[in-house]
Amino acid sequence: MVKRIPKIPFERLTPSGTSTLSPFNKPIARVKPGEEVEIETWDAFGGCVTETQTRKQTLDKGVKVPVNPVTGPIHIEGAEPSDTLTVEILDIDLPDHGATTISPGFGGLEGWLNFMTPRTKISQIKAGKVFYKTDGGRVVEVPVDPFIGTIGNSPVYEAINTLTPGPHGGNMDCPDIRPGNILHLPVNQPGALFGLGDVHAVQGDGEVGGSAIEVPAVVKLRFGLKKGYTIAWPRVESPDEIMTVCSAKPLEDAARLAYRELVNWMATDHGWQRDDAYMFLSIAAKARIAQIVDPLYTVVAKLPKKYLKK
Amino acid sequence: MVKRIPKIPFERLTPSGTSTLSPFNKPIARVKPGEEVEIETWDAFGGCVTETQTRKQTLDKGVKVPVNPVTGPIHIEGAEPSDTLTVEILDIDLPDHGATTISPGFGGLEGWLNFMTPRTKISQIKAGKVFYKTDGGRVVEVPVDPFIGTIGNSPVYEAINTLTPGPHGGNMDCPDIRPGNILHLPVNQPGALFGLGDVHAVQGDGEVGGSAIEVPAVVKLRFGLKKGYTIAWPRVESPDEIMTVCSAKPLEDAARLAYRELVNWMATDHGWQRDDAYMFLSIAAKARIAQIVDPLYTVVAKLPKKYLKK
Amino acid sequence: MVKRIPKIPFERLTPSGTSTLSPFNKPIARVKPGEEVEIETWDAFGGCVTETQTRKQTLDKGVKVPVNPVTGPIHIEGAEPSDTLTVEILDIDLPDHGATTISPGFGGLEGWLNFMTPRTKISQIKAGKVFYKTDGGRVVEVPVDPFIGTIGNSPVYEAINTLTPGPHGGNMDCPDIRPGNILHLPVNQPGALFGLGDVHAVQGDGEVGGSAIEVPAVVKLRFGLKKGYTIAWPRVESPDEIMTVCSAKPLEDAARLAYRELVNWMATDHGWQRDDAYMFLSIAAKARIAQIVDPLYTVVAKLPKKYLKK
Amino acid sequence: MVKRIPKIPFERLTPSGTSTLSPFNKPIARVKPGEEVEIETWDAFGGCVTETQTRKQTLDKGVKVPVNPVTGPIHIEGAEPSDTLTVEILDIDLPDHGATTISPGFGGLEGWLNFMTPRTKISQIKAGKVFYKTDGGRVVEVPVDPFIGTIGNSPVYEAINTLTPGPHGGNMDCPDIRPGNILHLPVNQPGALFGLGDVHAVQGDGEVGGSAIEVPAVVKLRFGLKKGYTIAWPRVESPDEIMTVCSAKPLEDAARLAYRELVNWMATDHGWQRDDAYMFLSIAAKARIAQIVDPLYTVVAKLPKKYLKK
Repeated sequence: MVKRIPKIPFERLTPSGTSTLSPFNKPIARVKPGEEVEIETWDAFGGCVTETQTRKQTLDKGVKVPVNPVTGPIHIEGAEPSDTLTVEILDIDLPDHGATTISPGFGGLEGWLNFMTPRTKISQIKAGKVFYKTDGGRVVEVPVDPFIGTIGNSPVYEAINTLTPGPHGGNMDCPDIRPGNILHLPVNQPGALFGLGDVHAVQGDGEVGGSAIEVPAVVKLRFGLKKGYTIAWPRVESPDEIMTVCSAKPLEDAARLAYRELVNWMATDHGWQRDDAYMFLSIAAKARIAQIVDPLYTVVAKLPKKYLKK
Repeated sequence: MVKRIPKIPFERLTPSGTSTLSPFNKPIARVKPGEEVEIETWDAFGGCVTETQTRKQTLDKGVKVPVNPVTGPIHIEGAEPSDTLTVEILDIDLPDHGATTISPGFGGLEGWLNFMTPRTKISQIKAGKVFYKTDGGRVVEVPVDPFIGTIGNSPVYEAINTLTPGPHGGNMDCPDIRPGNILHLPVNQPGALFGLGDVHAVQGDGEVGGSAIEVPAVVKLRFGLKKGYTIAWPRVESPDEIMTVCSAKPLEDAARLAYRELVNWMATDHGWQRDDAYMFLSIAAKARIAQIVDPLYTVVAKLPKKYLKK
Repeated sequence: MVKRIPKIPFERLTPSGTSTLSPFNKPIARVKPGEEVEIETWDAFGGCVTETQTRKQTLDKGVKVPVNPVTGPIHIEGAEPSDTLTVEILDIDLPDHGATTISPGFGGLEGWLNFMTPRTKISQIKAGKVFYKTDGGRVVEVPVDPFIGTIGNSPVYEAINTLTPGPHGGNMDCPDIRPGNILHLPVNQPGALFGLGDVHAVQGDGEVGGSAIEVPAVVKLRFGLKKGYTIAWPRVESPDEIMTVCSAKPLEDAARLAYRELVNWMATDHGWQRDDAYMFLSIAAKARIAQIVDPLYTVVAKLPKKYLKK
Repeated sequence: MVKRIPKIPFERLTPSGTSTLSPFNKPIARVKPGEEVEIETWDAFGGCVTETQTRKQTLDKGVKVPVNPVTGPIHIEGAEPSDTLTVEILDIDLPDHGATTISPGFGGLEGWLNFMTPRTKISQIKAGKVFYKTDGGRVVEVPVDPFIGTIGNSPVYEAINTLTPGPHGGNMDCPDIRPGNILHLPVNQPGALFGLGDVHAVQGDGEVGGSAIEVPAVVKLRFGLKKGYTIAWPRVESPDEIMTVCSAKPLEDAARLAYRELVNWMATDHGWQRDDAYMFLSIAAKARIAQIVDPLYTVVAKLPKKYLKK
């Protein structure tokens, strides 16, 4: 039977406890490398945005709306600083609906569209599709493409809020962190102190409005360790591609970091000269704008594995 | 027989004449909407980078290396300010090799990789593939994916250099401007005063080193006019997607402009409420970083046409 | 008697003629180095914003409001590419009132303050003071500190609109370009093809709302030439300081360019090692944010002359 | 007798303890509002850069060089979240020398100057002057202008490293936080959990090389509380000016935040309409680039107090 880690009860969600990745939080579970595990996650609103209740209405009732709570920290046995943690994403189990919001003062086009009213939409999810109802009453079907929005290890000595991405992972909102792929994360603490949440049923590149189809979920993972192998930023492997996931402001710095990490990866593991790798990326790299709405912006740079072969 | 517009002879390439898109240049040809036309183009180096001669060696001989020369201006009959010019890209005929260079002080990772030596590589092109020789002597085969790097109309009253992209088009380095797709450009002058050049046999997203597989080429096009239809920035249509192509610094502003233009397009032509379009893009848009090496950076935002259907 | 160059009549203000700095415009006057000259300038609105008429009201009457018109090009005798033009600012004669506007979709805090209504204020100017009337009916007295907002030479081969600053000068909105100081500009064309306009009676650092106290004016100048002396960006000398004025986006790049030009100046003219100059600026430089509202942003970096002495 | 808080012994400097501002650290001292207190501080290198030893040489000996250690947390009696802490800077006592370093991969012009060698300089401090020795052997005298580079309260629930500035204060490197002025800081924790360090004997605007004249020091302060008065970002009052100190990337966002806070201050405390305040800042604000070398960049926006008077 697969080990299951339940989500933290609503009344125990706290800013410093579940809205940070941090060395100061006590592990809620221990997992062995190689073991399969199912982890329950809250949505980014801690369940407070529903068909009948907006985020604001919850606040108005005096309920503290949790900010992007993660399930964690999870202690990975044997993980030590200078190791790399691999996270194989086996499956994501979606609920039957998800929430999307926009809000003045937040989001990628705030100040560019000058909209004034917060909006909430609940979309049904069924048979691999999201059913988005337009204002005109039409229903648009978008295939689900679920992934984990917030996932990471504890930083070295800071407590970083779960809205912010960085070298430790965090709120990368990167659609490539999905079933079938393997995420690599730097380990900064004994046990890694891993946490995750903020699953999206599907998201557009850039997550431009500030939220996607936000869902609670059950995520099935298998952890691994690359002992003594150190990386500077999160990486992803799909069956066909290697990817680096970097976050910065302005957005071009996120892109530069991601390309540089790709150059480093090609040089360290695949024998490329760094200048040569740089030239080659200029003709063969792919890139994705993951998001431009969090405190740092995230870019994924990618290279097909076939080009790496000796 | 298809009309053919030859490239401008090397000795007549001049900074103000062929390295600008400008209302001050005299048309070199006139084309009717609906007519097919083949246009010859220089590569971005004006042919001065070859197997046996780097850019610097040419300069050292006292030859002025042209900067990204375009073939133009081409007068499109009937085009008037407030129209939109459509450019159907029918075919791109590639030569048998192309050049790639990196150079200190230029390119996306300059100052991040601290390389010190300019490099030039010539890659063979054959049977739909680019053959890239690594420093280690391996040959990597990359499928060609040719497109037009620099393409645009005259600005309203400025003369803009051909290294810079903008609302008029220009050096967008956008791989979606390729055979099978239709580019839409604002018309700012009677006759549009269209020009193009800088074809790439293939390019990585971001064109991170500053150049791709740079080639001279023959491009087959068919022009059209949307009379009285005005757009603010270049747009692209593929069989399956609508796309907006915007350029700015920092890179997030290019992305924001591209998303905003997509919102505008959805609202104007397809009846979406602007807020609603914004929310929907947050779950369904795609984006591409075209380049982060020109004076302004370029992002393409995309939406599948199937989501637009009534 | 001092030579006087009148402003160009309103009906001859045109986008390509007076709203660009450009090699394509014909000189309106010729001036010798060493000669004193008085030049009349329009305000940034071409005189269309008055006590009784906003910019919008003018447009509504079908009048084309000129965009930041300059008086020029003025041919400076003997100026050749690779020279530096010096512009000694002797005096600025102000009128008795000036205009300030803010407008949604424009200005440094657009999208941050979410104001919705364009505003125009006319402030009286008298006895060296601007009299700003607050919405509450109070009159705040601000000492005048007049300077030339837009001033530059023709670019090498582009026609650049007069809203944009750059290596050629242009719309720098830099309060240090004022009486008592000397501006240095690169010469790119025979005769320099100098132009100026957009005088401000006083401006806050950053010009955050998008306009200052905008005035027509009479500016008294004396030109000089540093033959065979080449600079990359505009420079200013006050009696006590050397300054570099650079424009870019994002703002930190404008600052970096300005510091780098200061390092170059210290190295070329004053014998500093470049690393050493860099370290010294880290303890002794001053900087000013000139503006964050034009298409490129402008920073002035400064060093007291006393630190340069042998 | 004035209460004195000694600096934390070198062997007890730790990343999570003294290189963060954090709610997780235990107070080292308690101070009452109104009481004068002298606080000893380390320099930014924890004393490891000396005339005879560079940072790298210390690291090579196996000594962990502390990163910008602060003296704290200091518990301010009676401080509660939603209060504002005022910090009156009474005096800064400087030592007889300070250190300046530049290093490849760090600093504002890294990648722009392409220097390759780390440099360290020790400058003598005497009689109110810093004596900077140029590479050419000249001694340049720069008047001291000492201030506190890193100063702040604990964040709400994060542990933020002391290299980073933010709404909580931190590494603002703002020369206006100097004797004679009063710093205002948001209180986020009971007792505020205040810390400070990183005194500079003098610094150039931008701190472009990445360090100033870095010194250990003794700082004399007096704390105060504005009960129930909430601010979003640090503020400074000099005898003549009000100032806001904001940090972000890119640099224009730091400027925008600082101007917006100034608008808010004018509106909340001085009765200005927000639009009106915005227009007025466009003609009367001053701004300083504090630094462009830390993880977020810092701008100070200023307005003379005389303009606020009723």
